Amino acid sequence: MKINNYNNKSDVKNTNKLKAISVKDIKFNAGFWAEKLQLVKDVVIPYQWQALNDQVPGVEPSHTVEHFRIAAGEIDREYQGRVYQDSDLAKWLEAASYSLAYNKNPELEEITEKLIELIEKSQEADGYLDTYYTVVEPEKKWTNVRDRHEMYCAGHMIEAAVAHYESTGKRKLLDMACKLADHIDSKFGSDKGKVRGYPGHQEIELALIRLYRATGDEKYFNLSKFFIEERGQKPHFFDQEAQKRGEKEKKHYRNIFDYQYSQSHLPVREQKVAIGHAVRAMYFYAGLTDIAIETGDSELIKVAKRLWENVTGRQMYITGGVGAEDNGEAFSFDYDLPNDRAYTETCAAIGLVFWAQRMLRLELDGKYADIMEKALYNGVMSGISLDGEKYFYVNPLEVWPAATKKRYDLRHVEYTRQQWFGCACCPPNIARLIASIGQYVYFHNNKEIYLSLYTDSDAKFAINDRNVFIKQKTNYPWDENVTIIINTEESLEFSLGLRIPGWCNQAGLKINDQEINLSDITEKGYAIINRKWNNGDQLVLHLPMSVERIKSHPQLRYNIGKVTIQRGPVVYCLEEIDNGSNLFDLKLPSNNKLIAEYDQELLGGITIIRGTALRTDKESWDSKLYQSGQEKMLTVPIMLIPYYAWSNRESGEMLVWIKEKEL
Amino acid sequence: MKINNYNNKSDVKNTNKLKAISVKDIKFNAGFWAEKLQLVKDVVIPYQWQALNDQVPGVEPSHTVEHFRIAAGEIDREYQGRVYQDSDLAKWLEAASYSLAYNKNPELEEITEKLIELIEKSQEADGYLDTYYTVVEPEKKWTNVRDRHEMYCAGHMIEAAVAHYESTGKRKLLDMACKLADHIDSKFGSDKGKVRGYPGHQEIELALIRLYRATGDEKYFNLSKFFIEERGQKPHFFDQEAQKRGEKEKKHYRNIFDYQYSQSHLPVREQKVAIGHAVRAMYFYAGLTDIAIETGDSELIKVAKRLWENVTGRQMYITGGVGAEDNGEAFSFDYDLPNDRAYTETCAAIGLVFWAQRMLRLELDGKYADIMEKALYNGVMSGISLDGEKYFYVNPLEVWPAATKKRYDLRHVEYTRQQWFGCACCPPNIARLIASIGQYVYFHNNKEIYLSLYTDSDAKFAINDRNVFIKQKTNYPWDENVTIIINTEESLEFSLGLRIPGWCNQAGLKINDQEINLSDITEKGYAIINRKWNNGDQLVLHLPMSVERIKSHPQLRYNIGKVTIQRGPVVYCLEEIDNGSNLFDLKLPSNNKLIAEYDQELLGGITIIRGTALRTDKESWDSKLYQSGQEKMLTVPIMLIPYYAWSNRESGEMLVWIKEKEL
Repeated sequence: MKINNYNNKSDVKNTNKLKAISVKDIKFNAGFWAEKLQLVKDVVIPYQWQALNDQVPGVEPSHTVEHFRIAAGEIDREYQGRVYQDSDLAKWLEAASYSLAYNKNPELEEITEKLIELIEKSQEADGYLDTYYTVVEPEKKWTNVRDRHEMYCAGHMIEAAVAHYESTGKRKLLDMACKLADHIDSKFGSDKGKVRGYPGHQEIELALIRLYRATGDEKYFNLSKFFIEERGQKPHFFDQEAQKRGEKEKKHYRNIFDYQYSQSHLPVREQKVAIGHAVRAMYFYAGLTDIAIETGDSELIKVAKRLWENVTGRQMYITGGVGAEDNGEAFSFDYDLPNDRAYTETCAAIGLVFWAQRMLRLELDGKYADIMEKALYNGVMSGISLDGEKYFYVNPLEVWPAATKKRYDLRHVEYTRQQWFGCACCPPNIARLIASIGQYVYFHNNKEIYLSLYTDSDAKFAINDRNVFIKQKTNYPWDENVTIIINTEESLEFSLGLRIPGWCNQAGLKINDQEINLSDITEKGYAIINRKWNNGDQLVLHLPMSVERIKSHPQLRYNIGKVTIQRGPVVYCLEEIDNGSNLFDLKLPSNNKLIAEYDQELLGGITIIRGTALRTDKESWDSKLYQSGQEKMLTVPIMLIPYYAWSNRESGEMLVWIKEKEL
Repeated sequence: MKINNYNNKSDVKNTNKLKAISVKDIKFNAGFWAEKLQLVKDVVIPYQWQALNDQVPGVEPSHTVEHFRIAAGEIDREYQGRVYQDSDLAKWLEAASYSLAYNKNPELEEITEKLIELIEKSQEADGYLDTYYTVVEPEKKWTNVRDRHEMYCAGHMIEAAVAHYESTGKRKLLDMACKLADHIDSKFGSDKGKVRGYPGHQEIELALIRLYRATGDEKYFNLSKFFIEERGQKPHFFDQEAQKRGEKEKKHYRNIFDYQYSQSHLPVREQKVAIGHAVRAMYFYAGLTDIAIETGDSELIKVAKRLWENVTGRQMYITGGVGAEDNGEAFSFDYDLPNDRAYTETCAAIGLVFWAQRMLRLELDGKYADIMEKALYNGVMSGISLDGEKYFYVNPLEVWPAATKKRYDLRHVEYTRQQWFGCACCPPNIARLIASIGQYVYFHNNKEIYLSLYTDSDAKFAINDRNVFIKQKTNYPWDENVTIIINTEESLEFSLGLRIPGWCNQAGLKINDQEINLSDITEKGYAIINRKWNNGDQLVLHLPMSVERIKSHPQLRYNIGKVTIQRGPVVYCLEEIDNGSNLFDLKLPSNNKLIAEYDQELLGGITIIRGTALRTDKESWDSKLYQSGQEKMLTVPIMLIPYYAWSNRESGEMLVWIKEKEL
């Protein structure tokens, strides 16, 4: 019999790991992310607080905060709404906590303090915390972790607690989270008397690792590892659990009884392709990568890399969106990436960012940073309106509104952003990601600093116990230049790694006005400069952003004969408001010049792309549905905007993959 | 208040109508339809008889004949299977009846005689005939004509009866059908005491007109007209009927409570676009056209033409398939014709043939014959395998088997033909259509004869009480030439109309070796030759069949930049077995020569088309999912086969709309 020895505490080995910079150690001054952070502080967090408190006019009440008030005994009301909504509040609290790290905000501080008190009152004496079971079915706790999201909600509360602790230094919520995690640890695990179970929706795995990193308590690391390694073992826990509940028949809601849906079809080490519910998959793969970072386990590293290659090499949209199937909100299969029926849940793109960040820490390679950046600027940011108050759950790559309205197989697609959702996982998820964006900019240990996202900012590091300050000056992603200024208390030797994006062919670097030959020092997407740095050293990185026509692998059948326009990390699209209807009829001549042009006024300040395309001359086509012969084409001007900024004006058609006319 | 005066008996006005030739008056000698008729006789009818008797190994029992045996009291068994299966048997009996008109077949004659006796025993004393209600819920007859198909089954039985009478001269089944129709007439209609109702699934409308034409009894015409005109009137019959049943909640199975599903959203005269369940729509539009033929009602003619223009100008696949939505097996909306998710039920294409034939009789115009022919050779014939024993219910225009297997939104699509279906409406429907193909070849009255389908055959007509025999010699649709020989007892003046197909640009005609200027005599797709015909006169019609590249209207977004190859009336496709996998990657250079070549051995004898196309050189593409730069293209040979013949060899990809590389 094979022994599962993965609960061995000696697993934590990897000591000089790359850490993400703490959100407390980086400030944003101007430009893309500074503006988004401001929006999150000024609009998104207040708006979402209203939504969670059922105060947004015209929006169905979510009952989220209400649940805690009922559980805390503050009000006596019927429990309405969904079983997993505690997590929405936890995500919001996580976002609010990061925001407090960036900005003094007494009003928000008071709200969060009171909220934490409310949560405290909702927590049971033994640490249990889940308002649904506390209020509605207290006798059924932990009887259906496959479907009922108790661990998912716990995970988000733990993440909020770590964020609150790291941002504010206050321990109250962290202590509650430890109590909750201890309670779960008393119930689940490989020890005798514990349930060898794991959650239907992964999330707590990530949370426990963060709790371990925040507290240093290996118990949390081990429980996370247990959940990841136990998943998919035989006999199957979900079957045993269902049997205990007395379930006979398999229900077929969203393939929930299909092990693949929850990535529990195989033990983690045997998994080779991304499968099932895309958000669960992303959280799972991020979680197993976390374990690999901590343990350096070569087999698990192989699993992480194999899954990464499958997702990014065969199952990812060019926007960084994942999940090509509405049914099960799931991955489809290799190269099956239809544009109109994409699911590409905002949360899944967010999950890909989480995973990419961990892959980058596992193995410093620009290819991970490239995907992280791609998902951030495209598939994630498309999920929130420019005004911060409207959201996409599904992020399609082409929209024909009439079909979206009429076709049953497009019923999951919206072409205007929504104020809120019945299942509102995405809005607070995007809020917490933006609010924690600093974590994705720098990675470091005590002798190396790596710049992975370029954005106007000031960051602080400790190198061999000395402070190093790095300032970035840039209007990236619109601007091609990044000026980096090093400030140190004294001259100091360390490695500075600058990411050379995969989309950039002719990068240039000057250090103190001296041209550097990048090819000599660049490996795996990072230019490494190891030298003694003096206070005031200045680097100027030039990242030429030519307007690129990107094509898909020829097996990606939906995109053959089409191109996507990309400039820097930003994927572009056509919108009907700029280009008229029937975007599908536009053909981009392959020799056509496309000009990038910054427009300060449009859509919050964006670089647009202008050019010309061919379009069928309607005069040359009579009313026939089918006919032979050559139609006449007209040359028409076109204008593209960043994909993330679509659907912020009039609603209409949108298209990412544009037909190409090869010349 | 508006008076519905449509039940006025004086409505039958149109006296010199074009009739379809009777199946008894045409024989097929060789070629496409002769072979299909032979197949129907030798294989299809015996095979389907086995299926209806639950004798096909490996196929789920249909219980169809069993239902009649239970109803007749011959056996005592539980009633299993679907409520509308009487119609499958009726369609089979209709097919068998036509077959008896073409061929002596004592064995089949005996089977049908015995079957008619069995049906007679199943019919109740008052004429009622529906095995489900007789056996299972006798107290609930006529309480749910919206959903339960009593009238649909009655319609098919009446059609079988008319076919049997016209083919064999025997009245027994016809008398049973009259009794059944009289029974229905006693229950439904505008007279006091009758229910102002109509069926959820149209079909009886067509049947009653045929019964009227066979018997001369205007009662049947009036009942048909009542059903058509009453549909969609307010207050809505389906609501009244549901209320009587005590139904409170609306069930949402297949939008069955959506009036549009059954074309009952508006009164017939207000309907402007094709909508809802495609088979119901086709039968409805064919039925209303029948009424227009009989009455010459200009308003109804306008309705028929308007719906025709909508369907054929905006909602029809190039194969003559209709129905772009799986959900509700329905029409989608103008120009929404996706190829992979097409529903295009075989029965709907058959319904389009029925309708086109009636439009042609309403107004002699080649455009109706063009669509009739297009649907016959493509969207209908694709529904049956070359061996006659396997069927498609859904007829997609492109198939990627891996996606078909995996994607939920493609779950209605099969890529291999099936032996039978749980809902087996299509197989016997295609059998009865092929068996009655003669009805589509000639239309005539007592002074005009119109050839609308070209096929090797001998036909007989009465012109002013004199016999005229017309022989066609041709291997159409493979062959471009049709030789037409007139035989008369004596020289006789009449109009002979030859259809000049819409797909043919350079038709030529010789009469007795003398070249005729076709443009002088051709109007609305028919060349009309009015002269005194002598015995032995010979016409040679030359219909050049160039290989055409057909394009779609630029609003048909799914087909932009693509072409379909058509030769004569036959639409072509690529199959994986001939062209390798990933057909979606093939690009047809616009200047490329495509050669038609008859292959006697392949797929029962077909004209194939050969040429070359461009395909991505895999060597020029590394493993990346997305990249910039130009890929290398290879020139590869391609081979196309008629669409109807696909999926008769190995299963694999199939593609009708092929990318074009414009040069």
